[in-house]
Amino acid sequence: MKTIDLNCDMGEGFGVYTLGDDEAMLDIVSSANIACGFHAGDPLVMAKTLAAAAARGVGAGAHPSFFDLWGFGRRPILGERPDDVEKQLVYQIGALQALAHAGGQKLTHVKTHGSLGNLAHEDIELARAVARAVKSVDPDFILVVMPGLETERAGEEFGLRMAREIYADRAYADNGNLASRKLPGAVLHDADEAAERILRIVETGELVTVGGRRIPVRADTVCVHGDTAGAVAMARAVRTRLEAAGYRIRPMGAAS
Amino acid sequence: MKTIDLNCDMGEGFGVYTLGDDEAMLDIVSSANIACGFHAGDPLVMAKTLAAAAARGVGAGAHPSFFDLWGFGRRPILGERPDDVEKQLVYQIGALQALAHAGGQKLTHVKTHGSLGNLAHEDIELARAVARAVKSVDPDFILVVMPGLETERAGEEFGLRMAREIYADRAYADNGNLASRKLPGAVLHDADEAAERILRIVETGELVTVGGRRIPVRADTVCVHGDTAGAVAMARAVRTRLEAAGYRIRPMGAAS
Amino acid sequence: MKTIDLNCDMGEGFGVYTLGDDEAMLDIVSSANIACGFHAGDPLVMAKTLAAAAARGVGAGAHPSFFDLWGFGRRPILGERPDDVEKQLVYQIGALQALAHAGGQKLTHVKTHGSLGNLAHEDIELARAVARAVKSVDPDFILVVMPGLETERAGEEFGLRMAREIYADRAYADNGNLASRKLPGAVLHDADEAAERILRIVETGELVTVGGRRIPVRADTVCVHGDTAGAVAMARAVRTRLEAAGYRIRPMGAAS
Amino acid sequence: MKTIDLNCDMGEGFGVYTLGDDEAMLDIVSSANIACGFHAGDPLVMAKTLAAAAARGVGAGAHPSFFDLWGFGRRPILGERPDDVEKQLVYQIGALQALAHAGGQKLTHVKTHGSLGNLAHEDIELARAVARAVKSVDPDFILVVMPGLETERAGEEFGLRMAREIYADRAYADNGNLASRKLPGAVLHDADEAAERILRIVETGELVTVGGRRIPVRADTVCVHGDTAGAVAMARAVRTRLEAAGYRIRPMGAAS
Repeated sequence: MKTIDLNCDMGEGFGVYTLGDDEAMLDIVSSANIACGFHAGDPLVMAKTLAAAAARGVGAGAHPSFFDLWGFGRRPILGERPDDVEKQLVYQIGALQALAHAGGQKLTHVKTHGSLGNLAHEDIELARAVARAVKSVDPDFILVVMPGLETERAGEEFGLRMAREIYADRAYADNGNLASRKLPGAVLHDADEAAERILRIVETGELVTVGGRRIPVRADTVCVHGDTAGAVAMARAVRTRLEAAGYRIRPMGAAS
Repeated sequence: MKTIDLNCDMGEGFGVYTLGDDEAMLDIVSSANIACGFHAGDPLVMAKTLAAAAARGVGAGAHPSFFDLWGFGRRPILGERPDDVEKQLVYQIGALQALAHAGGQKLTHVKTHGSLGNLAHEDIELARAVARAVKSVDPDFILVVMPGLETERAGEEFGLRMAREIYADRAYADNGNLASRKLPGAVLHDADEAAERILRIVETGELVTVGGRRIPVRADTVCVHGDTAGAVAMARAVRTRLEAAGYRIRPMGAAS
Repeated sequence: MKTIDLNCDMGEGFGVYTLGDDEAMLDIVSSANIACGFHAGDPLVMAKTLAAAAARGVGAGAHPSFFDLWGFGRRPILGERPDDVEKQLVYQIGALQALAHAGGQKLTHVKTHGSLGNLAHEDIELARAVARAVKSVDPDFILVVMPGLETERAGEEFGLRMAREIYADRAYADNGNLASRKLPGAVLHDADEAAERILRIVETGELVTVGGRRIPVRADTVCVHGDTAGAVAMARAVRTRLEAAGYRIRPMGAAS
Repeated sequence: MKTIDLNCDMGEGFGVYTLGDDEAMLDIVSSANIACGFHAGDPLVMAKTLAAAAARGVGAGAHPSFFDLWGFGRRPILGERPDDVEKQLVYQIGALQALAHAGGQKLTHVKTHGSLGNLAHEDIELARAVARAVKSVDPDFILVVMPGLETERAGEEFGLRMAREIYADRAYADNGNLASRKLPGAVLHDADEAAERILRIVETGELVTVGGRRIPVRADTVCVHGDTAGAVAMARAVRTRLEAAGYRIRPMGAAS
């Protein structure tokens, strides 16, 4: 049987603030990327999200970021030394890991957030810092990577298990990275179109960029979002379409 | 041979800011309590302090706090639920533990910082939250407790290894807790007087409070500070006096 | 004609986070208390909220707090010196005032937020710090006070214009301060009951505490909330009930 | 008589943290650029620094920054919209202005900090946002600009009074902006060499870049630093050298 993972960013509240409909998304996805307090999340939100994921058999992973609550980790922060980024990631992953351990859970994966991820996909030194951080906390972690980009290369260099990821709601630049959110058409809003596109990428093994380039990808996981009502509906459409085509939705790293 | 530990709070910088003379103190003490980012400290400072402690054979432990950088964890923050405090502690200890692990080190102990510690010494529910947090991250950790107070009681309930602590530079209230910093005489400044007093407590097994009460204490560790030149000199005097009296200075938890 | 003000806390988002339905509330209330970045709010949210209030003729005031984003300013933080609190308030009020000035607006009032307000209502030194801060930024500001408590006393001492406030959705302790949110019944949820109670207080000139004490109050402004759908409905019910009883809803400080 | 201003960044502590020797520098310089809480500074530090400057007749100005305490405002943060930066600046300047006003003082100038300044010197839209922010708080403020760069151009467009600044301890890139701190030789450490160079620039009306370009500059103010013992000594050398050459050190904007 064909299997694939659906992943979603979660636990992105902070104090009194909430963001997205985690409860709804946990019924749709198989892996949760949990914010670790640097762009969002706090110890209470993290513990609650871990427990909610465990209660549904959803895999839990760390979603570390640049240290930038106000910018939600989306602002490109330049000039960070890779060694320093590595320590920031170890801190965040370790914090979530301890909360998971306290609740009798085990993390499965790590996926970098926002502009840190975007930069690492194109900067081998940053990508290696990510891989080193992940490996040093637990060499069994799965690193979520962008197929064909530097994060995948670094994951290979460090011998990490990897989940190659494609995005349900984002267009791709010609270099294989996400197209900037600021460009028209960079974010898809039609659920059926997104579901259809994802199935096509998975089935054909290639994605088409904004410039028409065809990039071969072997997708292990599909990123969906849950921060708007429309996003939840799109995630549901993606799952339904994949299941209808014979895919079983399984957490990344689960035995198939 | 008689042994005792000297511990000091360290790694209390943040970004460009530094605090205290960690290098000097690491040559004096046998255990370092490392800030975990909530009242001070950041991933870079934490990693650097861990490495500096390891290079000198100084034991490294976590020094978690209320989430209050501006107040340096010294402001009493009321109304925190013990369960929530527990998660905040797990987060901080886990973050430091992962950085230690990445550097091939193992943490030995946990000591709560500032007003969180002060409140926990007198509030059994808070003390239990501390003990639960410590135990859930690693049941082998040594919990630093205030002899006779609720943290010691909670440590016993949870079957934790404990280090009973006395302070070199602080006067004691009649209930056995530290006298408030705001009271006259609450902070000792004379190095010789402090050294002499510590030796007396260790040798006699009792401390004398501001009101003249005698409280029996079996001290495993002595807290010294390094945030001023005078503090460093006092720490040296304490070490010299204890060694002259035949004590060997060993990290808490070290086989004697 | 009888007039009264309805006020609501607003602009309590931060970065990507939003809180409450400010747009809906601006159609109901006559005064907006705008968060200033210490418990919530940031420069962008503040500017946007100021503009939205101005567009509807709603009076704008500052809603300063303890410096505690994570706790949303609700955690009692003890040990702050009144002089230090004064400077924190001047900072926040000044920041909002400059944004108002840049948009061609003028602030009308200041209302302290959360636990800072609660503490000030019962601590004359803290209440005086609030009054001094307000007066030093602009002696024409209206200080929102709790009738009969220390904030009113301090406002009188400093010769400030004052708006005596009652809460639509909160029960009162016997000392005239708000009953703690943690007590059962402390927060009212029934819109009609709340509207009826407010009208009664306004008409009779006295409120009844949880213990049955009757406290005389001359209410200038009624605080309503907008952080849930139910809260918005309650605010609407309060406005409708007051208008039906012949009250005209006017910003505090407006010529009647 | 020839006059010139010496300016220094100050009030860059935060909570328990201190940075630099403000007391020493206030005896050397004529203008203080006071941090406003975004990269450093807090309401207490700001009030204290304002009072210390006033006590010595040193002019006080705002030193606003990107919102980045951990990075001390030195990290280039990309993607900020100029309109948003404008509001962040108004917030900070307004906060300091209110504290100055509360102490009976008046601010004289605004100088942007760190990477915000560096970016604005080369980005006309960002430079205009700075100028708009300054003008909207008080059109009489003096804007500190980099001669020949976009901040000067924006200051002219908005009709602002300006102080053209040169740095005592920094080398210049060929485009007239500061050479990156990361380049060898970018930061000068020899006090006499720095003093001599500054005098030469002031007397000849041109500075020489790292690539040997000569750029005409009319310097109104010289930036000196006080964050190390060496920096204080350099500042003293600069002052002494300028005075020996017949310059009177006066706050920017003072009648000559």
